[in-house]
Amino acid sequence: MSRLDLSTHVVSLTAALCDLESVSGNEEVLADAVEEALGALPHLSVTRDGNTVIARTDLGRPERVVLAGHLDTVPLTTPPNLPTRREGDELVGRGTVDMKGGVAVQLRIAAAVAEPSRDVTFVFYDCEEVESERNGLARVGRNRPELLEADFAVLLEPTDGGIEGGCKGTIRVEVTARGKAAHSARPWNGVNAIHEAHAILGRLTAYEAQTVEVDGLDYHEALNAVGIRGGIAGNVIPDECVVVVNYRFAPSMTSAEAEEHLRELFEGYDVRVTDTADGARPGLQLPAAKAFVDALAVPVTAKEGWTDVARFSALGIPAVNFGPGDPNLAHHDDERVPVQQLVDAEAALLRWLA
Amino acid sequence: MSRLDLSTHVVSLTAALCDLESVSGNEEVLADAVEEALGALPHLSVTRDGNTVIARTDLGRPERVVLAGHLDTVPLTTPPNLPTRREGDELVGRGTVDMKGGVAVQLRIAAAVAEPSRDVTFVFYDCEEVESERNGLARVGRNRPELLEADFAVLLEPTDGGIEGGCKGTIRVEVTARGKAAHSARPWNGVNAIHEAHAILGRLTAYEAQTVEVDGLDYHEALNAVGIRGGIAGNVIPDECVVVVNYRFAPSMTSAEAEEHLRELFEGYDVRVTDTADGARPGLQLPAAKAFVDALAVPVTAKEGWTDVARFSALGIPAVNFGPGDPNLAHHDDERVPVQQLVDAEAALLRWLA
Repeated sequence: MSRLDLSTHVVSLTAALCDLESVSGNEEVLADAVEEALGALPHLSVTRDGNTVIARTDLGRPERVVLAGHLDTVPLTTPPNLPTRREGDELVGRGTVDMKGGVAVQLRIAAAVAEPSRDVTFVFYDCEEVESERNGLARVGRNRPELLEADFAVLLEPTDGGIEGGCKGTIRVEVTARGKAAHSARPWNGVNAIHEAHAILGRLTAYEAQTVEVDGLDYHEALNAVGIRGGIAGNVIPDECVVVVNYRFAPSMTSAEAEEHLRELFEGYDVRVTDTADGARPGLQLPAAKAFVDALAVPVTAKEGWTDVARFSALGIPAVNFGPGDPNLAHHDDERVPVQQLVDAEAALLRWLA
Repeated sequence: MSRLDLSTHVVSLTAALCDLESVSGNEEVLADAVEEALGALPHLSVTRDGNTVIARTDLGRPERVVLAGHLDTVPLTTPPNLPTRREGDELVGRGTVDMKGGVAVQLRIAAAVAEPSRDVTFVFYDCEEVESERNGLARVGRNRPELLEADFAVLLEPTDGGIEGGCKGTIRVEVTARGKAAHSARPWNGVNAIHEAHAILGRLTAYEAQTVEVDGLDYHEALNAVGIRGGIAGNVIPDECVVVVNYRFAPSMTSAEAEEHLRELFEGYDVRVTDTADGARPGLQLPAAKAFVDALAVPVTAKEGWTDVARFSALGIPAVNFGPGDPNLAHHDDERVPVQQLVDAEAALLRWLA
C-alpha cells in the first residue's frame, strides 16, 4: 500500500506530505512515496532521476503543459515545526506554504484527471532551496531536456492564489572601496576605506528604482546593499571595504545589461559579479498562457522574486507561478496556509484541465 | 656564564636580545637570561614576577625614576624575520624597533652605571603586544604597586630618538543602525539597515578632528571607522549594520568625557562601548620631567598612539616615551633600526643618569 493516498482531501494530503520531512538533500523517502503513488496510475508514465519524479500523460493532445513543484523544504526549527497542526482555518507547519500545498494540488490533479484537456507533464523535483548547482529541475533540464518539452509551464510556488507572471532577474556584485592601512592613532598616514565607502552607500540610497511594464505586468526593480564588511583590527585604519549589492531587474533586461548598469552606477570602484540569473518574461500574450489565465479567472500580477519559472523561460517555455499560500510566509518559522486556498487552487486547475 | 653579556656593544646586545625569540607568551627564556645577567650585578636587587624582571638601585637618592620596556614581540613572519642581520647602517629583524633596541639600552645603563644620579628601577615586562589583561606591567601595578613607585618614568618604546610626552586616550564603540529584514526582491516590506548606516558614515566623514594643546604639546585627535559589518544572506534586506568606531582623544579629556562626546555625535543610534583607555598628560612642567628633558636635549613632541605610559600616569607617575627606532616600522615584517639611534639613546640616558 502506498504511503500517500491521492484520493484523500487536498488538506489531508498536504499534511501527509509535510509530515514526510524532506529538508533539501533528504528528499529520498518523499520522492519514493510520490513515485510509488503515481506509478499506480495507469494513465501516467513515470520517470525517476535522482530524487526528481516526472509523470506524463500521452494522449496526443495538440498542446502539452507542465505542472512543476519542488519536494524539499528549508530546515525545521528547534523544536521542530512539524508535524503539521490545524489552527482554525489554517494548516500550520514547515512546508505548508513552500510548497507542499502546491505539490498536493499537483498530485490530486494527476490522480483525478485521467484525460486532461491538454497533455500534462508533472514534475516533482529536489534541492530547490539550496545552491543552484544542486537544483533537480536544472539537472533534468541539462541531462534530459526532452522530458520538459512543453508549450507552457505552471510552477506551483505560493502566490496567495493569484497568477504571478514571469519573474525579475537578479545580480549580485561586490563593490569595493580601497584605502591605505595605517595606525588609527595616526590616520593621516593612511586612507580609510570605510569612509570611502560612504559614497557607495550614497549612490545606493539616492538611487531611484524603476517600475517597468513587461508584457502588460508591472515589475518593481530594487537595488540594495545586502552585505557590508571592512576592518583589520580595532587600532588599524582599514584598507578595504566591500559592499555586497543585489539588483533585482525587470525581465525585459538581460543580466549582461544589468551588470553594465551597475558598472556605470559604481564607476570609480572595483565591481565584481558574484552571482547572476536572468528573469523570465510573463509571455501572457501567448495562446497557451492566455487559455490558462482565462480558465482560472484569478488576479494576474508580476512575480517580484526570482523563481524557477526562469529555468523554463531559458528553455523557451513561457511559465507562470500559481499556488496556494502567502509567499511572504515562506521560510518563516510559523509558516501556515489557509485551507481554503488549497481547495481553491485545486478547483482552479480543474477548470483548466478537466 | 650568562647568555647575555651586558658589557658588549649596544648593537651586538640588541641583536643578541632579538635572536632570543620571545613572541608574547614565550618570554620565559629571555626573562631568565635578563634575570641572570642582572642578578650578577651587586648594585641591583632583582625581583621576578612571572616573566617580568625588576631590578632596583637603592642608594637613598631623593628621586627615583623608572626605565621600562617590554620583552615580547609580535609574531615572526614566514619565513622568519630572525635571526637579525646587518644591512649597511641598520640592524634588521623582528624586535629591532619594537622594542629590544630599547631593552638593550636599559640593560647597558643598568650594568654600566653603578651609582646613578637618581635611584633607578629597571622594569622588563611580558605580554605588551597582546590583550590588556595579560600585560605584565599592569599585573605588577595591580599586585605589587610599591615596586613601581617613582617620581618619573621613561618607557623605551621607539620614538625615533626624540622624547614623546604622554599619549592620547582611546575608546572604541559599536554604533548600530537598525532596520527590518525582508526579501531583497520585495525591499518595500523592510528597512535596509546598511542604507541607514549611510548617515553614520556621513557623520564620520564630516567630523573635523581637533588638535588640542596639553602641557605645551599638540595632540591630534582622530575619529575613524575601524570596522563595519552587516548582512544576513545574499537575498535578504539586512536588519542590522554595525560600525566600529575608534576615537583617539587628547589626554586633557577623560574616557568618560570621550564616551559622552560619541553618544552626542551618534545620537539616534545604539552606541555600545567595547574598549576604553585614558590617555596620559605629558607632565613636562614637573621637576623630574624637566630635568630629563634638559639633560637629553632632543626634540620633544606629543605621543599620538596609546602606550603603557598611561599605566604610569594612572599610578600618578608622569611618564614619557623615549627610545630608538621609527615607530612607523613597529610590527612591520621588515622592521629595522639605524644603529646610530641605539648608540645615541644610550649616550642620552648616560647624560641624565651618570
